[in-house]
Amino acid sequence: MYQDIKQACFEANMQLPKLGLVVFTFGNVSVVDREKGVFAIKPSGVPYESLQADQIVICDFDAKVMEGTFRPSSDTKTHAVLYKHWTEIGSIVHTHSTYATSFAQAQMDIPILGTTHADHLTVDVPCAPPMSDEMIKGDYEYETGFQIMNHFEKKGFSYKEVEMVLLGNHAPFTWGKNAEKAVYNAGVLEAVAQMAYLTCTLNPRVNRLKDTLIEKHYERKHGKSAYYGQGC
Amino acid sequence: MYQDIKQACFEANMQLPKLGLVVFTFGNVSVVDREKGVFAIKPSGVPYESLQADQIVICDFDAKVMEGTFRPSSDTKTHAVLYKHWTEIGSIVHTHSTYATSFAQAQMDIPILGTTHADHLTVDVPCAPPMSDEMIKGDYEYETGFQIMNHFEKKGFSYKEVEMVLLGNHAPFTWGKNAEKAVYNAGVLEAVAQMAYLTCTLNPRVNRLKDTLIEKHYERKHGKSAYYGQGC
Amino acid sequence: MYQDIKQACFEANMQLPKLGLVVFTFGNVSVVDREKGVFAIKPSGVPYESLQADQIVICDFDAKVMEGTFRPSSDTKTHAVLYKHWTEIGSIVHTHSTYATSFAQAQMDIPILGTTHADHLTVDVPCAPPMSDEMIKGDYEYETGFQIMNHFEKKGFSYKEVEMVLLGNHAPFTWGKNAEKAVYNAGVLEAVAQMAYLTCTLNPRVNRLKDTLIEKHYERKHGKSAYYGQGC
Amino acid sequence: MYQDIKQACFEANMQLPKLGLVVFTFGNVSVVDREKGVFAIKPSGVPYESLQADQIVICDFDAKVMEGTFRPSSDTKTHAVLYKHWTEIGSIVHTHSTYATSFAQAQMDIPILGTTHADHLTVDVPCAPPMSDEMIKGDYEYETGFQIMNHFEKKGFSYKEVEMVLLGNHAPFTWGKNAEKAVYNAGVLEAVAQMAYLTCTLNPRVNRLKDTLIEKHYERKHGKSAYYGQGC
Repeated sequence: MYQDIKQACFEANMQLPKLGLVVFTFGNVSVVDREKGVFAIKPSGVPYESLQADQIVICDFDAKVMEGTFRPSSDTKTHAVLYKHWTEIGSIVHTHSTYATSFAQAQMDIPILGTTHADHLTVDVPCAPPMSDEMIKGDYEYETGFQIMNHFEKKGFSYKEVEMVLLGNHAPFTWGKNAEKAVYNAGVLEAVAQMAYLTCTLNPRVNRLKDTLIEKHYERKHGKSAYYGQGC
Repeated sequence: MYQDIKQACFEANMQLPKLGLVVFTFGNVSVVDREKGVFAIKPSGVPYESLQADQIVICDFDAKVMEGTFRPSSDTKTHAVLYKHWTEIGSIVHTHSTYATSFAQAQMDIPILGTTHADHLTVDVPCAPPMSDEMIKGDYEYETGFQIMNHFEKKGFSYKEVEMVLLGNHAPFTWGKNAEKAVYNAGVLEAVAQMAYLTCTLNPRVNRLKDTLIEKHYERKHGKSAYYGQGC
Repeated sequence: MYQDIKQACFEANMQLPKLGLVVFTFGNVSVVDREKGVFAIKPSGVPYESLQADQIVICDFDAKVMEGTFRPSSDTKTHAVLYKHWTEIGSIVHTHSTYATSFAQAQMDIPILGTTHADHLTVDVPCAPPMSDEMIKGDYEYETGFQIMNHFEKKGFSYKEVEMVLLGNHAPFTWGKNAEKAVYNAGVLEAVAQMAYLTCTLNPRVNRLKDTLIEKHYERKHGKSAYYGQGC
Repeated sequence: MYQDIKQACFEANMQLPKLGLVVFTFGNVSVVDREKGVFAIKPSGVPYESLQADQIVICDFDAKVMEGTFRPSSDTKTHAVLYKHWTEIGSIVHTHSTYATSFAQAQMDIPILGTTHADHLTVDVPCAPPMSDEMIKGDYEYETGFQIMNHFEKKGFSYKEVEMVLLGNHAPFTWGKNAEKAVYNAGVLEAVAQMAYLTCTLNPRVNRLKDTLIEKHYERKHGKSAYYGQGC
């Protein structure tokens, strides 16, 4: 019944180690089926190298397991909250990729320093602050989703334009219209984070990209008159 | 007679180069058989790429060779001391992995800066100080084991909860209930060390993780009501 | 009709991921046919892992598509301008390789600190400043070519002797008499940039190479009495 | 006639890219035949990926070609000088490996900070200063050999105990009784250099290893009562 998203979820998860974004069990990808109101997600604690497609778990938007014999990722409630409220997301990726996680640990936004960054978003990659003790002691993974959404609201960001976030002291989440885009965003984020790290340690007084250049690069790829790519 | 632990020890050793934790001969894994009172350990100075299962050496807890034609690892006495006193360890791993060893050389604990760390232990990865001249000039590898145990005692740490240590100016040791866990801990330590290095050089004034977050992440994976993994 | 340069362009593009210089779609190589007055270039937004030789696009020096059903790289006008004015270039490579791009983001020349650098050029790798708002809002990729050429003119550099440049806030461009040389230069630039990064962060007060050593290394490889290589 | 050292030289050269110590043509290995008074060395400017055993060149200790149709490495005179004066060397390796070269560019010795270093030598890896203008303008590669030997004499080092050197602004040379050991030393040097870089940037006030620990680690591997390895 959910074969399509289970297979898509499995394949997207297997991209993470291939792209060098995860080791051991440090990550998870989910893929949504909006019509059926469910999403497929990696089982908890299963190493990537032994992951099988039929171990993928199906959950509804309250994180209730609908199909599957395995326990879903411990981060399932975070995915569920985001799918419920951000209604046009098709897939979510969570990793502890090295450089992006280091910015999260440093509790720093990733500053926009070059066109590689501007090709994908027009603002610094936002780092949401660590949660309050109350949220942590409460329904932690559920609150994690709200912490992300609240930070976007405070910043005035749209999840359709900014498809990535760092959670302070934790690690990145990325998303997209489908699994391919969400995984791509996880890879872009890590590349952008590495170059930002190198730039900041090389020249601590470096300035952010100027607005005209930010706008130009974003528009040529995502604007109405975009001319990057094959237009399909 | 010792075929099981010899094979387990061989396979665990071969994981180290695969995980990027050793080059040349810079490391060793041992696996214990508590019933027989012996452990299997890598032979000294044999490169990983030519290591054979039948070269694995069997020693008792006084580091006496019980079986094998090769000389055991020069670090054998350290393993023997730890097996003798920490009676629930099943396997020990020693590497000179790049980032963990750099913290050992810097004589710094690895500060707990993120949830990747907190998923595995609730404290900074301890760095035992270099040994006294007397210990170094004495039975060096034997004393190395005591230096580790003494540091744990001084810190009030249990080897069952903190399964890794840095030895100042030297390199890391990790352990676990079995070889798979001990090798896993060596890989986790290196990943945590790399992200701590990047975080500290990016933001030298970074704060340690707050206690609620440390507790939450450790408990969800290791506590009585753990809900990470498949519970088996 | 353009089969030779299409194949050469395809093969040169495929070298970039192999050398670790690109991920996803972050780069492009072009190869010129001076007699026919056209160049072959990578199609826009096509990932390296699915790139096919028959997707390569042929353009003239005004960036007009002469053959091919795909849209050419969004950077095509930059290539066209350089081919038109620098009449002895045979191939151009653009990447967002990690260390070279970090210097571009830091808006720093790559200082000449060792003989690896001096074997290939006698000056710091120049970093052209970001363009004026007018240029960015205008015909951006076309102006990018002029920004590079203007910087070389201001510096008094010859494109025949200095075959690489960083564009501030963006990334590197390299070129050469043929595709093999242009790709080689992209790889050399990244290696030189990485070692310069490490040298500068290790010893911020380091001095540039002295002139006699710069001259000696460059001359033994490129001078009239060069004795490096097989002389063919 | 020289088949043995040609084959040994070829195989040793091919280890360098495998160990990640060279890219393109940035390195060379030579192997000596003391009885015949000649050494085999890599041809100049031939990329490692296309290198063939029959391209290896045979030279005498005055760097005169004795056999081979290719031009020998441009660094041949440096090898010749070292073989002539350091009469117990069996093989020499020159690379531009990333971290070791960065210390050479920074004109810094690699400080002895851990037991990985002390397992191989008891002193900081020496960095010879850049040569005088007179030496550079003279017989450059010949003088390079003397610069290395003079620095060892000034430091009071024996080439039999310290089998590696950095040449300021240039890159490392290592050697050993045979090709296997010389290549091993090149790999050890790069690993030690990387960990020293990370240690120094993590804790700039770090102290060198204390003497008792240096002596202990070196002696257990190289002393009269060495107990590391299989004793063969």
